[in-house]
Amino acid sequence: MATIKDGKGTLALAAFDTNAKLEKHEFGRPAPGPNDVNIDIQYCGMCHSDLHACNGDWGLNAFPIAPGHEIAGVVKSVGADVKDLKVGDKVGVGCFVEACFSCGLCEQGEQNLCRECVQTYGNPYPKGKGHDECAGYHTNGGYSTSITVRSDFVFKVPEGISMEYVGPLLCAGITMFSPLNRHILMKEGEKPKSIGIVGFGGLGQMGVKLAKAMGCEVTVLSRSTSKKDEAAKLGAEILAHSDEEAMKAAAYSFDVILDTVSAHHEIAPMMTTLKVGGTYVCIGAFGQTFGISPIGLIFNHHKIEGSLVGGIPETQKMLEFCSEHNILPEIKVIAAKDATDQFKALADGSAGALRAVIDMSTLSDLPARA
Amino acid sequence: MATIKDGKGTLALAAFDTNAKLEKHEFGRPAPGPNDVNIDIQYCGMCHSDLHACNGDWGLNAFPIAPGHEIAGVVKSVGADVKDLKVGDKVGVGCFVEACFSCGLCEQGEQNLCRECVQTYGNPYPKGKGHDECAGYHTNGGYSTSITVRSDFVFKVPEGISMEYVGPLLCAGITMFSPLNRHILMKEGEKPKSIGIVGFGGLGQMGVKLAKAMGCEVTVLSRSTSKKDEAAKLGAEILAHSDEEAMKAAAYSFDVILDTVSAHHEIAPMMTTLKVGGTYVCIGAFGQTFGISPIGLIFNHHKIEGSLVGGIPETQKMLEFCSEHNILPEIKVIAAKDATDQFKALADGSAGALRAVIDMSTLSDLPARA
Repeated sequence: MATIKDGKGTLALAAFDTNAKLEKHEFGRPAPGPNDVNIDIQYCGMCHSDLHACNGDWGLNAFPIAPGHEIAGVVKSVGADVKDLKVGDKVGVGCFVEACFSCGLCEQGEQNLCRECVQTYGNPYPKGKGHDECAGYHTNGGYSTSITVRSDFVFKVPEGISMEYVGPLLCAGITMFSPLNRHILMKEGEKPKSIGIVGFGGLGQMGVKLAKAMGCEVTVLSRSTSKKDEAAKLGAEILAHSDEEAMKAAAYSFDVILDTVSAHHEIAPMMTTLKVGGTYVCIGAFGQTFGISPIGLIFNHHKIEGSLVGGIPETQKMLEFCSEHNILPEIKVIAAKDATDQFKALADGSAGALRAVIDMSTLSDLPARA
Repeated sequence: MATIKDGKGTLALAAFDTNAKLEKHEFGRPAPGPNDVNIDIQYCGMCHSDLHACNGDWGLNAFPIAPGHEIAGVVKSVGADVKDLKVGDKVGVGCFVEACFSCGLCEQGEQNLCRECVQTYGNPYPKGKGHDECAGYHTNGGYSTSITVRSDFVFKVPEGISMEYVGPLLCAGITMFSPLNRHILMKEGEKPKSIGIVGFGGLGQMGVKLAKAMGCEVTVLSRSTSKKDEAAKLGAEILAHSDEEAMKAAAYSFDVILDTVSAHHEIAPMMTTLKVGGTYVCIGAFGQTFGISPIGLIFNHHKIEGSLVGGIPETQKMLEFCSEHNILPEIKVIAAKDATDQFKALADGSAGALRAVIDMSTLSDLPARA
């Protein structure tokens, strides 16, 4: 959210160049306006996107930058017009912090798709949103001790979700919940029952838990069946998409497939396991294209769609759903001093499926940048 | 529909090999069973699919074959259990003539997608459907003087649609109506208003008429603006997809795009004109693939789907809609003797957008096959 360049008072863990080394930094957050909330940040999850933004993959050149869009904390102060939040409330902030609130998408609660949506970090903060002292300077995220956010973008944490789990729900959680909500919970009449999930990292695991809680049969499509026991623990079958015989046997099996893999791959082999009329949801983003046969689409009435996090009401619904069904992400809490190593592990693929969540109380222990 | 091999009594225009020369033929139709209707065929439209089936493009090897799935005629006799049709009724038969009637798709009225759907011509007629005397022999279509069809697949022609126009409505009409029905007529809340139609042949023209009648703004995406006047006559704008500047100006314009082009092309340039959350419907089938960027799908929440004619209730709804809004295809009535020339024109691309409809009363004038 809005950041005062060269301001003071907020400690942060920031990258100073594309080496993606995270070091201690200090900047300023604006005082909350009438519709804002100021939050003491307790935890922030580390998303692979944070690394992409810091190491230059996404063409950003806004340093120093504190990334982080998986934010959990406690309300420290509220603006005069804020009605539904009060000091001491446990809250979360996710991937975006501003939108136009007047387009059709915003009116439908899909602020995540608004053309004027402002990302929690790395976007220029716009004029006319109440903090012109910050306008033009890039937003900084949750790798910091405090944040000031328009209250619309602040989610209440339901009872039963410990604060260290909140952040990843606002990223992986809503990313998987949104398509499942559209295609299962919100579906009238007969609801889809058979769900395929491609990839079994953090997103895939979250998808299995959510789809199981929605009463679906879930199959993980993975390179091999080596994660069979992990899938079984969550109540899911596993199908190796490299196994031609197994894939033939699974033809026309799934109502909906959620593809979480963000490395380049062709989706055609997976499409064969989609029922007539089924939907393939692309969640994992990569820069290359994949090939699609119009004949396959037409004769099977298949649909392919993209999905990007979720809007404000859907995100709050997701938190309530996770609380009710006791769904939590797989995490590990780390100290601020270990965040750079976690970036390295994300970069070299050794990070595993446990989401790292930074304990922001450890930020003050960090030595000053040399 | 069902055909008695080496039977007699029905004159037909059939291809005897992959040269797609249409010659006089005679075969037998079964007597109507309790749920069937026997129809005297008056007209049958000539679809490009008929040529594909006859000239071997689709790998069929069932000769002689009488194609034709754009059938219009008059009920000659009805089975004992047929309730809603009587002798003398004006009726039509479209692309399919059997389905399982027990799968989820059939229960939803989407018999067109049933795995046991039997095409009007060129499919082996199955056992257990009341005409085992025809089982295993391929179905023959409407290039013939009579047909026996299960009454579920027989559509009533509403007042106000002359019989020569009926057949093309059961092919091009329902092909364009089905996605527009799903995305506009059946849409709750705010309905899509801005429709793009790629290609301006028979399908494209029908799409423009239907979408205009549904209250939409319609733009034809064509190679050039040379058909501007024709489009304007139907109330549509035209956009040359080869014109980079015009395409840039049209970015994020359309709620829904219907792509009718059946020659290989990339859809990516057209996708840029789709609004956030918009749907691209593939209708024109071709054997190659096109490339899709997952990033584009994800960040724009775009959807791509295939569409294949429509189910029984939707087809009857389409006929009522066309009658109410006075929507007719652009046709020319031809004699049976000119059908082979029309095939040649379809093959060499000189056929134009007027759908040829064979007057079946001219079939008896045709000399016997040499």
